[in-house]
Amino acid sequence: MNKYVRFDNGKSIEYGLLEGEKIIALEGSIFEKWEKTDRIYDLKDVKLLAPCEPSKVVGIGINYKEVVNKKGDAMPEEPVIFLKPSTSVIGPDEAIISPKGVKELNYEAELVVVIKNRIKNVSVEDAKSHVLGYTCGNDITAKDFMIKGKPWTKAKSYDTFMPIGPCIAEGLDGDNLNIKMYHNGKITQNSNTSNMVFNVAQIISFVSNIMTLNPGDVISTGTPPGKGNLLSGDVIEAELEGIGRLKNIVK
Amino acid sequence: MNKYVRFDNGKSIEYGLLEGEKIIALEGSIFEKWEKTDRIYDLKDVKLLAPCEPSKVVGIGINYKEVVNKKGDAMPEEPVIFLKPSTSVIGPDEAIISPKGVKELNYEAELVVVIKNRIKNVSVEDAKSHVLGYTCGNDITAKDFMIKGKPWTKAKSYDTFMPIGPCIAEGLDGDNLNIKMYHNGKITQNSNTSNMVFNVAQIISFVSNIMTLNPGDVISTGTPPGKGNLLSGDVIEAELEGIGRLKNIVK
Repeated sequence: MNKYVRFDNGKSIEYGLLEGEKIIALEGSIFEKWEKTDRIYDLKDVKLLAPCEPSKVVGIGINYKEVVNKKGDAMPEEPVIFLKPSTSVIGPDEAIISPKGVKELNYEAELVVVIKNRIKNVSVEDAKSHVLGYTCGNDITAKDFMIKGKPWTKAKSYDTFMPIGPCIAEGLDGDNLNIKMYHNGKITQNSNTSNMVFNVAQIISFVSNIMTLNPGDVISTGTPPGKGNLLSGDVIEAELEGIGRLKNIVK
Repeated sequence: MNKYVRFDNGKSIEYGLLEGEKIIALEGSIFEKWEKTDRIYDLKDVKLLAPCEPSKVVGIGINYKEVVNKKGDAMPEEPVIFLKPSTSVIGPDEAIISPKGVKELNYEAELVVVIKNRIKNVSVEDAKSHVLGYTCGNDITAKDFMIKGKPWTKAKSYDTFMPIGPCIAEGLDGDNLNIKMYHNGKITQNSNTSNMVFNVAQIISFVSNIMTLNPGDVISTGTPPGKGNLLSGDVIEAELEGIGRLKNIVK
């Protein structure tokens, strides 16, 4: 069960395998073929980056049953998708920048699927064979800019609004992972991905029937109840079982 | 006034300058520094491609005064933005593929701004200095999938839904260009970019205050009245004064 990381060693950017407090640098591509090198770093000596560089980020809205039930709505008939630009992606420990004038800056802990292959029109049955692994995500939203009848784009697309990381974990069952958010150390979201309305395979199949997905593209699968507001100086940590904690601060 | 094209010469993909029916191949980057080579092609011997490879496509909705007036709505207070994925981009003469089950496939002739530099937070005054040039665009939309209160993403994001081309024309006044659409040879859209609610500089400044724009990113600036439905076999041509005609067929 590999845990892939992308990191800055102070001189260059490399991919590596996270093993405890050590990182073994890799040669090749984590999406195709790679080999271990003899370069080994201490985790504390490097800066972890977003674990991949997606050409696009697809988000899924309203995808936890508890959220739908709370609102008293009918279950969505198909995944509700939106896009965030690649320029919104940041890595662990980077700052989430609150745009000027925003009063409601929401955090949302999410399971993020990292796509392995270039795919189009995959079936639900085949979908999971195209997953490299999973990482944690925080779908930041300027709630003030979510206006009825208007696209969600402005609210979701600011630079720094899509922290992902710390690693891409292979070999997990994405449909049964505990998911938690720690807001200034206090647990505010606490659920399991088994409570998603559409599971990982259904989501990948649905999205790939609309748009081609490239290696490293990510799908953020929606958030359980409990999302809340961020203020300057807050520490926000999204945790997924088997992956780790994605920590960011707010500026 | 250069007209940049990207083309497949049968063996490799190159950038070039379009001069009449000839293309002079370039070395270097059209976004930074380039030089003419001595390789000259006949236009008819190469295949033109989308003139750039955007990392993102930003669309602007409801941006012609005539459209707003027709609906009887108030003018939007700020540009209405949405995203289309890079995988939706195709070039001249490529087929627009109608998704299964779609009954209303809309075409929309649009002026497309091609960004020259990596920019963030530019002012209205500085905005146009970051434009490489303009191309024609056709913002294809599966109208059936535009559902009130839902993101526009599904309707706008299918592969082939963003034809751009044929060239990137430098030195034009983007705020005063005739814009036309030919649907099976008949003019169905006919306006001028001076009728836009938000002009080119206002749009670039607005978008760059939300997200970083990269060289080659494109902003499609909205469509005048007259958008219509496409059927299999239709020929659809978006024309902008000083740029040319972007022709695509529907499958």
